[in-house]
Amino acid sequence: MTAPQPPVVVLVAPQLGENIGMVARAMLNFGITELRLVSPRNGWPNPAAGPASAGADQVLDRAMVYDDIPTSVADCNRVFTTAMTVRRMLKAIITPAEAVRQTLALPPGGARTAWIFGPERTGLFSGEVAMGDSVIAIPTNPDFGSLNLAMAMTVMGYEWMRQTGDTPPAYLAGDETGPATRHELEGLLGHLEATLSTREYFFPEHRGPTMRQNVRNIFQRQSLTSAEVRTLRGVVKTLSEPWPRIRGT
Amino acid sequence: MTAPQPPVVVLVAPQLGENIGMVARAMLNFGITELRLVSPRNGWPNPAAGPASAGADQVLDRAMVYDDIPTSVADCNRVFTTAMTVRRMLKAIITPAEAVRQTLALPPGGARTAWIFGPERTGLFSGEVAMGDSVIAIPTNPDFGSLNLAMAMTVMGYEWMRQTGDTPPAYLAGDETGPATRHELEGLLGHLEATLSTREYFFPEHRGPTMRQNVRNIFQRQSLTSAEVRTLRGVVKTLSEPWPRIRGT
Repeated sequence: MTAPQPPVVVLVAPQLGENIGMVARAMLNFGITELRLVSPRNGWPNPAAGPASAGADQVLDRAMVYDDIPTSVADCNRVFTTAMTVRRMLKAIITPAEAVRQTLALPPGGARTAWIFGPERTGLFSGEVAMGDSVIAIPTNPDFGSLNLAMAMTVMGYEWMRQTGDTPPAYLAGDETGPATRHELEGLLGHLEATLSTREYFFPEHRGPTMRQNVRNIFQRQSLTSAEVRTLRGVVKTLSEPWPRIRGT
Repeated sequence: MTAPQPPVVVLVAPQLGENIGMVARAMLNFGITELRLVSPRNGWPNPAAGPASAGADQVLDRAMVYDDIPTSVADCNRVFTTAMTVRRMLKAIITPAEAVRQTLALPPGGARTAWIFGPERTGLFSGEVAMGDSVIAIPTNPDFGSLNLAMAMTVMGYEWMRQTGDTPPAYLAGDETGPATRHELEGLLGHLEATLSTREYFFPEHRGPTMRQNVRNIFQRQSLTSAEVRTLRGVVKTLSEPWPRIRGT
């Protein structure tokens, strides 16, 4: 299967080079590389962008400049605009998660998607928001909801990576033994129970079954690895051996 | 049901006041308000934090300072650390999404969760990472993966809001009529088909059924609202009426 094509990011009338740089960084952090600028206030290239990009030069160097929004997305099949505040309009308002789901549901291969972000202070005007097929609104605290451009890009980039990235890192890093088998786990629990039983831990007798189950639950809940089971068997053994050690045993 | 209690955010040895301020802003953007600082390099309060917080004073004013990590999370039930690079250790490495799922699976009410972030340049040391129950790794581009503190907080805050927030904004903003009923939609499609049929659109005859279906698909795919159906009926009527209008009709 063809890997999904990352969206094109369009910044409309961005004011500060620093913000363009920080957006480029957030893009590359999440594997998105194609940046388009519509009428950047201070022209392009902008010397303030590079230092703010933390090394995302490959994004800045390839950025293209356009005169208006329609030209900037002329080759795209599906266009999402972003809104800071959502005004009345007959337009689908969707979450970032839904926007990425819709993108991934497009036919593989040729389908190009654009995410359009407005200028720092004002966001997109209503007429510009309406140029998209759908409007993305990032869910935020209703009393303190304003995100800057880099934060909005970070959210969208993360959402893209979350839905398209490789499987998350292995459940347990640094332990290649993988989840313990049932056999290994029963070996541990049997060892533990036998030892506890010998030492009359399960007392009074009528509470024995419940106490056994409580002990089992502690270890069964944890998805132990094979290596961890071996570690715990060593712990049980060590705790249950006579101490100080008797020579010759 | 009790609303889930937002996590406590712990910054270990943060270097710059600006970064503390930007973290506070990202926290409040996503409804998270409790900030704890472990040995901030330049003491606390830090005059650079306020301006960078974009108004999140309520977070900064209530920030508490601690001498070490264990003290800072002594009242928490579940502690997540964050790792920039994951070294070998017997510790669960999980995604932000999984961390929030685990938090929400805790018993409601008393359960407190902490997210611990390391200093800007180095992140947490291995020994510090190991102080958490699980380690969160944000999925990023393997070749350009370094996020700054504010970006990491933005991702975590967004993930919190994504899983706990209210239902996303209504599917259609500014249109309180809601999704069209089947009856309304059939009214539109029937009107459209009848009009097209009268005008011999469905021709040649053997292609009629396919052509009808193609027209229907266009409108059925869109989850039209009642208001939109009315709009479209007006469009069909307008297009199909004689023009220029004949007086008296």
